[in-house]
Amino acid sequence: MQVLPEPIQKLTAAFERLPGIGPKTASRLTFYLLRAADEISLDLADALAQLKSQTSLCQTCFNITRAGQEQCEICASGQRDDSLLCVVEEPMDVLMLERTAGFHGRYHVLHGVLSPIEGIGPSDLKIAALIERVRAGNFQEVILATNPSMEGDATALYLHQQLAPFHVRITRLARGLPVGGDLEYADQNTLLRALAGRQNMSG
Amino acid sequence: MQVLPEPIQKLTAAFERLPGIGPKTASRLTFYLLRAADEISLDLADALAQLKSQTSLCQTCFNITRAGQEQCEICASGQRDDSLLCVVEEPMDVLMLERTAGFHGRYHVLHGVLSPIEGIGPSDLKIAALIERVRAGNFQEVILATNPSMEGDATALYLHQQLAPFHVRITRLARGLPVGGDLEYADQNTLLRALAGRQNMSG
Repeated sequence: MQVLPEPIQKLTAAFERLPGIGPKTASRLTFYLLRAADEISLDLADALAQLKSQTSLCQTCFNITRAGQEQCEICASGQRDDSLLCVVEEPMDVLMLERTAGFHGRYHVLHGVLSPIEGIGPSDLKIAALIERVRAGNFQEVILATNPSMEGDATALYLHQQLAPFHVRITRLARGLPVGGDLEYADQNTLLRALAGRQNMSG
Repeated sequence: MQVLPEPIQKLTAAFERLPGIGPKTASRLTFYLLRAADEISLDLADALAQLKSQTSLCQTCFNITRAGQEQCEICASGQRDDSLLCVVEEPMDVLMLERTAGFHGRYHVLHGVLSPIEGIGPSDLKIAALIERVRAGNFQEVILATNPSMEGDATALYLHQQLAPFHVRITRLARGLPVGGDLEYADQNTLLRALAGRQNMSG
């Protein structure tokens, strides 16, 4: 017996395709929307339909920007530090770094990492454009802020080699214990890096 | 500075209105959809737009059914036990019970519970229709499967009083330790109910 009418099954299936949403959460969201005001599901439907058609990539840093805009807000701004470039994997990383309010330079979004297993090589990422930007620009430091994962490290290593001719300072984000973390729960590698990177106490 | 273009902010905000989805999950879903194939967001948008317009309530049990159908699949089926009626709070509860494959009677969906605090009284729920069904039908047992919460219990108590004149057996779902659960983590009330409802071992 088909207990659920097709529209419900369709929406549940569509939710289940999203990362981190399993069958139970998908059902709960669907039945919540059934009960909730119409505008909640219709607003979400609208926003989804417009997501791709109304966004594009910034032609300078490849961050997400409004469709029709050649440059994103950060690249277009005159308030940013032109001597600092931060290279990240994904557009969401830009958002996370901006939220810290601790970086005021420019960004470059690679849109992925090198991954021989998945067949992703340098030409699949925005690496040629990065090299050209560093060649043509006046950057004094390039922060390779790819993830502290195997692929992120390998990508940073590759970029380090490619950028070596430009005599620019190249850095990686610090590794160590997360703020608010607990030594007891830190994995061995993180603890090793925290130990190796220990710093003088000030004050 | 507005780091994110408006379409992204709009979708993130729409996701955040769903239960259990916070700002971080909303961002993650949005950026996932940006990267993913167009059809994933468009399918979801379609399913959302059709959710309300293509569903309606079964005129017998008030479960969700396809628009234009007077009765849901369960009510229309000739294969169900007409002597058993299970009363639940929400359409999703029907789904959960059907998944157990342990109940083969009919359902009645109240669409909520009595809640004086939120101003929800008997006339806001499908209670009059329930009483009429029990009066007119041949049910031998009515299972009041509202949640084991304060409101669920109060609603069951009210229904018990209302259904008393019909000389039908009225039951509640058993309470006790969840299967696979751990005595150590059970709350006091659950343990008390498990103790009071202890059963002879068979075999």
